[in-house]
Amino acid sequence: MQFTLQQIADALGAPAEGNTSLTILRAAEPADAGPTDLAMAMAPKYAEALEKGAARCAVLWEGADWKAMGLEGAIFVTRPRMAMAGITAMLDRGQGVEPGVHPSAVVDPTAEIGKGVSIGPLCVIGPRARIGAGSVIGAQCHIGMDAALGENCLLREMVSIGARAVIGDRFIAQPGARIGGDGFSFVTPEVSGVENVRKTMGDAGDAKAQSWLRIHSLGAVEIGDDVEVGANCTVDNGTIRNTVIGSGSKLDNLVHVGHNTRVGRDCLLCGQTGVSGSVEIGNNVVLGGQTGVVDNIFIGDGVIAAGGTKILSNVPAGRVIMGYPGVKMATHTEIYKAQRRLPRIARDVEALKKAVFKQPPSD
Amino acid sequence: MQFTLQQIADALGAPAEGNTSLTILRAAEPADAGPTDLAMAMAPKYAEALEKGAARCAVLWEGADWKAMGLEGAIFVTRPRMAMAGITAMLDRGQGVEPGVHPSAVVDPTAEIGKGVSIGPLCVIGPRARIGAGSVIGAQCHIGMDAALGENCLLREMVSIGARAVIGDRFIAQPGARIGGDGFSFVTPEVSGVENVRKTMGDAGDAKAQSWLRIHSLGAVEIGDDVEVGANCTVDNGTIRNTVIGSGSKLDNLVHVGHNTRVGRDCLLCGQTGVSGSVEIGNNVVLGGQTGVVDNIFIGDGVIAAGGTKILSNVPAGRVIMGYPGVKMATHTEIYKAQRRLPRIARDVEALKKAVFKQPPSD
Amino acid sequence: MQFTLQQIADALGAPAEGNTSLTILRAAEPADAGPTDLAMAMAPKYAEALEKGAARCAVLWEGADWKAMGLEGAIFVTRPRMAMAGITAMLDRGQGVEPGVHPSAVVDPTAEIGKGVSIGPLCVIGPRARIGAGSVIGAQCHIGMDAALGENCLLREMVSIGARAVIGDRFIAQPGARIGGDGFSFVTPEVSGVENVRKTMGDAGDAKAQSWLRIHSLGAVEIGDDVEVGANCTVDNGTIRNTVIGSGSKLDNLVHVGHNTRVGRDCLLCGQTGVSGSVEIGNNVVLGGQTGVVDNIFIGDGVIAAGGTKILSNVPAGRVIMGYPGVKMATHTEIYKAQRRLPRIARDVEALKKAVFKQPPSD
Repeated sequence: MQFTLQQIADALGAPAEGNTSLTILRAAEPADAGPTDLAMAMAPKYAEALEKGAARCAVLWEGADWKAMGLEGAIFVTRPRMAMAGITAMLDRGQGVEPGVHPSAVVDPTAEIGKGVSIGPLCVIGPRARIGAGSVIGAQCHIGMDAALGENCLLREMVSIGARAVIGDRFIAQPGARIGGDGFSFVTPEVSGVENVRKTMGDAGDAKAQSWLRIHSLGAVEIGDDVEVGANCTVDNGTIRNTVIGSGSKLDNLVHVGHNTRVGRDCLLCGQTGVSGSVEIGNNVVLGGQTGVVDNIFIGDGVIAAGGTKILSNVPAGRVIMGYPGVKMATHTEIYKAQRRLPRIARDVEALKKAVFKQPPSD
Repeated sequence: MQFTLQQIADALGAPAEGNTSLTILRAAEPADAGPTDLAMAMAPKYAEALEKGAARCAVLWEGADWKAMGLEGAIFVTRPRMAMAGITAMLDRGQGVEPGVHPSAVVDPTAEIGKGVSIGPLCVIGPRARIGAGSVIGAQCHIGMDAALGENCLLREMVSIGARAVIGDRFIAQPGARIGGDGFSFVTPEVSGVENVRKTMGDAGDAKAQSWLRIHSLGAVEIGDDVEVGANCTVDNGTIRNTVIGSGSKLDNLVHVGHNTRVGRDCLLCGQTGVSGSVEIGNNVVLGGQTGVVDNIFIGDGVIAAGGTKILSNVPAGRVIMGYPGVKMATHTEIYKAQRRLPRIARDVEALKKAVFKQPPSD
Repeated sequence: MQFTLQQIADALGAPAEGNTSLTILRAAEPADAGPTDLAMAMAPKYAEALEKGAARCAVLWEGADWKAMGLEGAIFVTRPRMAMAGITAMLDRGQGVEPGVHPSAVVDPTAEIGKGVSIGPLCVIGPRARIGAGSVIGAQCHIGMDAALGENCLLREMVSIGARAVIGDRFIAQPGARIGGDGFSFVTPEVSGVENVRKTMGDAGDAKAQSWLRIHSLGAVEIGDDVEVGANCTVDNGTIRNTVIGSGSKLDNLVHVGHNTRVGRDCLLCGQTGVSGSVEIGNNVVLGGQTGVVDNIFIGDGVIAAGGTKILSNVPAGRVIMGYPGVKMATHTEIYKAQRRLPRIARDVEALKKAVFKQPPSD
């Protein structure tokens, strides 16, 4: 895999100057770059590091003086991370899954394998499963019976897709992702302490100790186009209807999405976020790392939650939230600042009580 | 798989009316239901959706006027989720693991495989492992040497059971669950900063930088009957004794249970809950999603923790807790309400100081 | 595997008394110990339990009166957990991976397998992968193309190592650990709401709804010597450079380390800790369970974070922190104590306002 500087500039739609026929094999950080690397130096702060490396060409910020930096050629970009998207897509060397179906894979004869599909070693493809054209299934994956995967998908190693899942095109799954485990849904014969606590906000009542009966998951998981799920993340089957992940949404590593939940389009669920069952999440929602969402609420379009937020009630569209429980970020900041002053406030109140009521300080 | 309306009513022990010989292939949400579906409409709020669908029969709330809803037959239930448990168990189409041992599975000749056991493709069953009658082992599972699994267990794909684990009957494991990883247990040659912090509640002292020595796990994992563990969750081996999960307890996805910990009977550990090592958890305990539990404490019978609670000290039986650190839910709510008023309290205190002490407001 | 009491004492460098030729097959808790077990009773509180068991020998605290406890022999130690490290290492019966390469493993002919390497059933070893002498690869593992693993490593079952990872000697990976998933890195064509929130600390501005473009991971993962990673934990590839885990560091179950992050030497990342991308973590850092770390910050040498801490900004070396957001543990404790008194402070302030300003209490 190699490109000229000009080919990369063209792909980015970005201007290039100097010797644009230079050959590029890899991208590199400025200080590490060698003569066949493209140095990624898209802000003035990288200029110095660039001089430490041996790059002959670089991606630079607009207006950068590439000749003064000793370069032979350069590409100029205005939105660095957009350039990163284009360049890294071109130079990705992938994981090396061989074309075709590996002879060690166990593929059910009723499975429908599209044109140009690669299936790695020791995969299991179940009865009537369908895999769309151009998809790459990494080693040791499992695709359950009656599951359908779209075109040009990429599954890394050891991904599992449960029976009856329906997944769109260009789906990407990182190693160990689990689509279609059964939902976590149990019930006690009589009213349980948890049910009482939810009603009373804290009182378990006199519910007796009981065992849990299982509610099976008859639904599956339905995933739109252009979705990515992270390593070891889990999306559970719905109970009666399907659990849904909308097109363009991205789930990071170790994210959990519970049964019946519907995630909208173009959402980002960052690392270790957990969404309980029967939650309705709108479009363009961003949940920071380790966000938690209780069951049976809705989160409106465009909501942004800071990392660590625990969302315990409905959130209207457009709101930026933080905290445990999650509140408007501005409110959280105001509360937090006051908290920092709280020990002093406590002392002030004692002094005031002494002065006003002539009473001795309490403990 | 199909049933008559009457068969389902009988299984639930619930009254049915109308044409109870109707054939049912699936359960469906009221608005999605077709003519061979059983519509799940167990509260009056679903009546309208029912009319949008094409259901001929439904599960309804007690006293519902099924004829007025245009149905031909109905079952009446008083505790909807209990009915869900019964109906979904009947209509579960499963994952399609074929009977018998798949020829691609690697089964040690010394393993004891019970009557009617199914073992999916590409499984590994270790030396002297025992699998009880009627159990279903999904594709690509691993059962370690000397491990024992009870009767009628169900392992989804890619579950791993470590050596010497002892597991009861009717165990269910979702994809990627890990039973019997080694515990996370390390020690430094001399007293470490962490040990000092624990003693002093915050002072690392002058402990020098040291490397960690590993304490191996000689114990295993011991699991009772009727336990379920979620996708990608992890239960670690004990150090000397076994880690224990009591009968009837259920662990959700991505839950972590550390070495030596003992979880009692009929507990629910919700999504992403983490329990450290050497914790004693009683019976009928419910830990909401993302609960965290520090090591070496006990949690009494019937304790309920709200989602996101961080439990940093012993919790007596029956307590309902919330927060970081976890306190009684009522206390947490009171503190939280006061926090919301804190910015105003701060302003009030400044005004009071000005009035009483004639002093200028502080920063 | 069996030892005499003397052999164990010698390995620990600890004094032994009595019949030191006793044969030991296992370690056991004092009350469970049988005649061929070594009872682990390293503090006076275990003396009573010891009498309930049938141990003939034990590991005891310094100065313990072993004869009075009815023992025939004993070893005496001063730092019990250090003794645990030595004893458990000797008595670990392991997982039983057979020597040599199992015939069901799919090993690329260009892979370099060192001397004395064991490769379990149904493993996949990719092109040009290198496995150092004496390493044990458990069943159903995956080692990607061009990955390099050092000597005497131990991979439990179903571990996956991505392409181009570089891993040192004595690496231990628990079941389902994922090294080298792609980083979670996306960008919108125009400025997004999240970018605005980060700049303004809370205002998403008028960013329009957009889809996410993927930034591929061209970097890999680089791991030093003596590193251990827990069950189902995930370490992502870097974008341009490698993600790095320094020698001697240990990651617990379900820990997440994002792309480009560099973890120093001899760190402990406890269960379910999540570290975002591009974080710089020093040496000898301990992050308690469920700690979260935002992206693009640094954490200095020797920092200790209590369980549940959310680290939202740089942390200087040596600091002990706690809370959400993480602050000095002493500060957190002071704030927390004041919070507990907050409802009363609120009442006091109302009373003061009434007395000083003669105004009625607010809501």
